Amino acid sequence: MIWYGRMTDQSSTKERILAAARDLFTQRGFEAVSVRDIVARARVNLGAVTYHFGSKEALYHAALSSMADPFAALVAQIAARPGAPLDRLDAVVRGALAHLLDNPGPPAILLRELASDRPLPPPIANLMRRNLGAVATIIAEGQRDGSIRQGDPALLAVTVMSQPFFVRAARRVVTVALGADSSDPDQQARITDHVAESVRRSVANTPPVPS
Amino acid sequence: MIWYGRMTDQSSTKERILAAARDLFTQRGFEAVSVRDIVARARVNLGAVTYHFGSKEALYHAALSSMADPFAALVAQIAARPGAPLDRLDAVVRGALAHLLDNPGPPAILLRELASDRPLPPPIANLMRRNLGAVATIIAEGQRDGSIRQGDPALLAVTVMSQPFFVRAARRVVTVALGADSSDPDQQARITDHVAESVRRSVANTPPVPS
Repeated sequence: MIWYGRMTDQSSTKERILAAARDLFTQRGFEAVSVRDIVARARVNLGAVTYHFGSKEALYHAALSSMADPFAALVAQIAARPGAPLDRLDAVVRGALAHLLDNPGPPAILLRELASDRPLPPPIANLMRRNLGAVATIIAEGQRDGSIRQGDPALLAVTVMSQPFFVRAARRVVTVALGADSSDPDQQARITDHVAESVRRSVANTPPVPS
Repeated sequence: MIWYGRMTDQSSTKERILAAARDLFTQRGFEAVSVRDIVARARVNLGAVTYHFGSKEALYHAALSSMADPFAALVAQIAARPGAPLDRLDAVVRGALAHLLDNPGPPAILLRELASDRPLPPPIANLMRRNLGAVATIIAEGQRDGSIRQGDPALLAVTVMSQPFFVRAARRVVTVALGADSSDPDQQARITDHVAESVRRSVANTPPVPS
């Protein structure tokens, strides 16, 4: 959780509000949290949310951005490394899965928003577009050098990102299905290797599998 | 929505309560719905929930089961058809994706529960175990006849089910990423073909992709 900064007595009011908002929105979702809950947790006065953020919704978006931006930056940074496209996809998948497993807040909020009928908040829609876009760029490179099969790069990017997402989203079910504890590092390494191998096979430019 | 029965004036009190519970729990989640909300929507008296179901939690589980059971039955029925293992996996993936896209309620509740810290309600945990189990059985068959690659069948089953799940969960993002409307039947057919092809490649017993 080092991404999100640490709360100290020296933390500014704005940072304290953001940290409280991240915790509470992650635990309960947007509707179930009031501005009063947030100011009580942050130990600031009621007017501070309006002063620093303008509205509860703007604070929610700021809290989402503060969690989404490090994830998008991580994926972009891995994607920009040199190397063969399939190997860079491998690194993105491993990095994304590790990030999702290490940071419980962002997946919880993402799942809750995907479950709702509301339009996706811009920070979440942007995160997913940025990550899928970074992957699609690698895929297009692999299509040019012949290492990745033909097809819509955006659709192939969905295939790549679906597996780390599902493994994290359904972690408790995966744990039961595998009869093993996914927080055990050996087990986690085995799942990560499996996901990376499956992604590589699903997008590599190999002959079609006969029916 | 034919799976869930149709409400008519002749519907029994119990069926009316179940239908109201499915609608409200799907829209708002377990905590945000009261027994009073449900009896008001179902137009039954307040005691009817206790009489027919015992408690709000038991009604929630009954509502979940009434949505989960048709999905598990569908997957089991497709999985039991004759045919080559890879072709049966293909049919399961297509059937699961079509079911998830046609029935908005179950994915919404599933995502909301996966987002929460609560233990998974038994009907949801059972659904996921049954579906992953049906897929793992096909995979073990394919490993015996040489058509599917070696590896833990439970882990390979996670790979198979992750893609229909993600495409449905992230439908609004996928729509934007592809620059097309996923409710357009042509677009939906294209996404389904892509998912089926990616799953087949990810589990088929082909040589490893070189680094």
